[in-house]
Amino acid sequence: MLVTLRDIPADAEIISHQLLLRGGYIKRVTAGVYAYMPLMWKVIQKITNIVREELNNAGCLETLLPQLHPSDLWKESGRWEGYTAGEGIMFHLKDRQGRELGLGPTHEEVITKIIGEVLNSYKQLPVNLYQIQTKFRDEIRPRFGLMRGREFIMKDAYSFHKNKACLVQSYEKMNDAYEKIFKRCGLHTVKVDADSGAIGGAASQEFMVTANSGEDLILISEDGTYSANQEKAISIPEKAVPLKNGTPTTKETKEQCSIETLCVNNNLHASQIIKVVLFLSILEGGEEIPILVSTRGDQEINEVKLINEISKEKKKAVLNISQITSDKLISQGLNCIPFGYIGPDLSDSFLNNASTWERKFTRFTDHTAANLNHFVCGANKIDLHHFYFNWELLGKLKHKTVDIRKARAGEHSISKSKSNLIEKRGIEVGHIFQLGRKYSEALDSKFTNESGLKEAFWMGCYGIGISRLAQAAIEQSNDKNGIIWPLSIAPFEVVIIIANLKDNFQKDLGEKLYSYLKNKNIDVLLDDREERAGVKFKDADLIGIPIRITVGRNASEDKVELKKRSDIEALVLSSEEVLKRTFEEVSSQKQVLSN
Amino acid sequence: MLVTLRDIPADAEIISHQLLLRGGYIKRVTAGVYAYMPLMWKVIQKITNIVREELNNAGCLETLLPQLHPSDLWKESGRWEGYTAGEGIMFHLKDRQGRELGLGPTHEEVITKIIGEVLNSYKQLPVNLYQIQTKFRDEIRPRFGLMRGREFIMKDAYSFHKNKACLVQSYEKMNDAYEKIFKRCGLHTVKVDADSGAIGGAASQEFMVTANSGEDLILISEDGTYSANQEKAISIPEKAVPLKNGTPTTKETKEQCSIETLCVNNNLHASQIIKVVLFLSILEGGEEIPILVSTRGDQEINEVKLINEISKEKKKAVLNISQITSDKLISQGLNCIPFGYIGPDLSDSFLNNASTWERKFTRFTDHTAANLNHFVCGANKIDLHHFYFNWELLGKLKHKTVDIRKARAGEHSISKSKSNLIEKRGIEVGHIFQLGRKYSEALDSKFTNESGLKEAFWMGCYGIGISRLAQAAIEQSNDKNGIIWPLSIAPFEVVIIIANLKDNFQKDLGEKLYSYLKNKNIDVLLDDREERAGVKFKDADLIGIPIRITVGRNASEDKVELKKRSDIEALVLSSEEVLKRTFEEVSSQKQVLSN
Repeated sequence: MLVTLRDIPADAEIISHQLLLRGGYIKRVTAGVYAYMPLMWKVIQKITNIVREELNNAGCLETLLPQLHPSDLWKESGRWEGYTAGEGIMFHLKDRQGRELGLGPTHEEVITKIIGEVLNSYKQLPVNLYQIQTKFRDEIRPRFGLMRGREFIMKDAYSFHKNKACLVQSYEKMNDAYEKIFKRCGLHTVKVDADSGAIGGAASQEFMVTANSGEDLILISEDGTYSANQEKAISIPEKAVPLKNGTPTTKETKEQCSIETLCVNNNLHASQIIKVVLFLSILEGGEEIPILVSTRGDQEINEVKLINEISKEKKKAVLNISQITSDKLISQGLNCIPFGYIGPDLSDSFLNNASTWERKFTRFTDHTAANLNHFVCGANKIDLHHFYFNWELLGKLKHKTVDIRKARAGEHSISKSKSNLIEKRGIEVGHIFQLGRKYSEALDSKFTNESGLKEAFWMGCYGIGISRLAQAAIEQSNDKNGIIWPLSIAPFEVVIIIANLKDNFQKDLGEKLYSYLKNKNIDVLLDDREERAGVKFKDADLIGIPIRITVGRNASEDKVELKKRSDIEALVLSSEEVLKRTFEEVSSQKQVLSN
Repeated sequence: MLVTLRDIPADAEIISHQLLLRGGYIKRVTAGVYAYMPLMWKVIQKITNIVREELNNAGCLETLLPQLHPSDLWKESGRWEGYTAGEGIMFHLKDRQGRELGLGPTHEEVITKIIGEVLNSYKQLPVNLYQIQTKFRDEIRPRFGLMRGREFIMKDAYSFHKNKACLVQSYEKMNDAYEKIFKRCGLHTVKVDADSGAIGGAASQEFMVTANSGEDLILISEDGTYSANQEKAISIPEKAVPLKNGTPTTKETKEQCSIETLCVNNNLHASQIIKVVLFLSILEGGEEIPILVSTRGDQEINEVKLINEISKEKKKAVLNISQITSDKLISQGLNCIPFGYIGPDLSDSFLNNASTWERKFTRFTDHTAANLNHFVCGANKIDLHHFYFNWELLGKLKHKTVDIRKARAGEHSISKSKSNLIEKRGIEVGHIFQLGRKYSEALDSKFTNESGLKEAFWMGCYGIGISRLAQAAIEQSNDKNGIIWPLSIAPFEVVIIIANLKDNFQKDLGEKLYSYLKNKNIDVLLDDREERAGVKFKDADLIGIPIRITVGRNASEDKVELKKRSDIEALVLSSEEVLKRTFEEVSSQKQVLSN
């Protein structure tokens, strides 16, 4: 069943998505929901087989957990609200008894509960369970085909340990397994430090396929000693341009409500100014917390870092964060705040009459701002700024100094070398986490330790986006004619094209080669459709089979064409030689990929 | 990770469910939703591998369709209402955009739509696509573990053909594949004629594993020439006991409102009486239709047959059927109907003031009643029956004569032999359907036929309950000590128990045998837990590994114990002999199961 499209589908923005649709690999059923057609399913199975082999070798056990999750479990871990009412990423429904169920986007809750009921003793540890399963996320903006779907295939693994050292050991082991898996799949990946996000935990790293269409921005040091997702990245900020000494004074700065206008009018550099931004943060449980963030004027705020700081400070998950606008103030019944002229010392009295917000600011100051000896900042009145001020003059502020700035390309890495950071875009195909005891404590999942005491499990979790990985491989390897699959995950290793089916020499020889390769366990496709040879060549290129054998008009002289998808030229050889080279090519490519 | 339970779980009613829980194969997460633990997952994978091999051999192509279905598709086929508001078997939800989605309980809609878009010509047919996937059903009463879950694993296949003859051919081919699959899984199945139910279509057959705990009642002729699900079964009813001739008369029958009291008081046989039952049927679209069913007094009404007849008559799906009670009459504002004294000619005028019901009865008469020359029946007034009446005396009734009686054990089969029917209970593990063009017509899914005209595909569909099959195998094969798996689907083929881990002879020999068998591709489990030998024996029996090798105190003399799970006695042999016999046993059992 080989059915391809000639036209570029209108709604596919990136090349890999276009090629999957044109090659007949996937069919869209509704937004972010695709059917995997037979060719695609073969690719998925080849990937999952590689994943299974490497994980089984690493001592993991395969399992299958439910997709329907009772809300109770997620309420116990404290994630129900965030995943439904909050970010709303979890599809949820009520069953005929009116009980709430979620469709699993991830399985920490389920597995932590089960393991707590099943395992009792440190002697049974460590254990690492994995599953390969369809997951669900009600994405705000599903796009790019399998890259960001609402229904997608994941491998997720969860490990359980008696202490942190054992967790770290397994984490390293999984790291190695992941590197093998991606290599065997023919992918070039970069490993980056990552934010743990809604999953939580201490350390985490992502495996990224670099590609211009990638949704993640990553920063890599030129010497390769540092790499991180921008959400997580830290760097050495550029030094501030020294501000000449001056007497602290408050000056009129009419219509200079932006950093730019302030610089131009007063001959300042952005790094000499303190920028203040107000956010409203909604916590799990519904509390609405006004946040005041101060940073150096030439820096940008990293909202992921900010959310983590708020969550740490308030000891609660952050459901949502957004900038405070005049509209929001009005709906709270508050007087206007002098936006554009705010200083770090903006008084809590501005919040006095707030109807639902907390009536004080939670204040965070980025190190870049805190480190300034003297600076320019807003004076909390329209058209007024403080010049040559310092932190002491602002009075006793209750603020926390933290890293909440965006690291950027061009800055120096924090590794010893202080090498320059460069920017790339990446597609996240894997993510490994040291969870620690977040879930086991929340869900009261415990074992008896060596001292005979009950203790919460130490946990790790490890994901691979199987369906996304398949598409990332295409994004990484294609040309104007179509896909160029790595041999190990191609739907077929070899395609045999019989140029003219009515020519018995061609037909017989083609079928003979096909049977022969098939018997030797080569995954071979025989294109014996009644189509013109040109159509078959185009299709073979489009669907990206690594090796093409063409049986054409020289079949009667036992001459056959051999062409690698990645090569331009074909070789004309005897059928025996073609078979020999095909075997060599398949086994050598497999070996390269697995070493 | 081998963790078993000693106690019989309180909420497991049938033996297979108890053994799955006790053996640590599954863990309940919520009603009708289970996690497949590593041992169970191995069983599931062995079954799916067999299914894949046989279906691929039969020319089917594997695919994976979405689990989230847009409601539009199901509205196009006319099943949305029935599967949600009606029977309510489909879980459904709204996404963040407020669009309705169902969780796939079956995939006719999705695949029919896709194939209509992908295939154009009869030249591309036939095509048979299958998937192995988790399905969802919001069961009213989930029970018996994996037998009737709300989340379960199915293999479903859908075939597309250019005409009916090709459909029948594929249907037969799938039938053969199914027989091979069940045989290879070590199951004894009975094939029975089945009702097509909500799936629809012309012919369908179920594959049943017979077991006392089975939810289906099946009727099989003693000579094996006929077998059917009772829902579908037809038979030759017993002859009515002749009613002596008498003058038609209407008599007082005070307090004789049941067939039994009428018989006793008037020396009648139930087969001489016409029994009338009233139903209310709700059709798709919401119409409420009163139904009057007449049958012979000794017969029971088969509601499945009745639903099919209503649906055929009204050309609409029946969402629900229930008997009419006094309460229902009151809520319609109707006068009381003389229950217990109703005749087939009950006047439609009883429905005159119905608020939402159709104001006339749709009348069905079973052949057994229609064939009576004269009979006793209700006179439509309390305490009055007609005696020696005939159909002519009841006036011109607009009723349809149909088969809506339950066939029963003891009756004669309709096959040539007229052999007696016996009753068994069955677990449905497979179901094959000739769908015809029901879905392709509804979803406008067409191909160009040999005459160049557009025509709706001819379709078949074919299901296997993978997770249910696993449990059915246990229900069919167990003893007081636990499960006795067929070798082909056992989680391990062989278990090696080292009786005393501290004895180095035992440990070394056990590990040597383990490596040896593993290298020879025998699926072997080494039980090297620090437990007493007795505990390990009990566990090996409970989880049901077909072959047990025990390395015990005679290890130093190279003597080892070999025991089949299904045997009582163990053999003590040299380790070499044990290996030899193990190979023989594994290969012979595999061969028996696949021939």
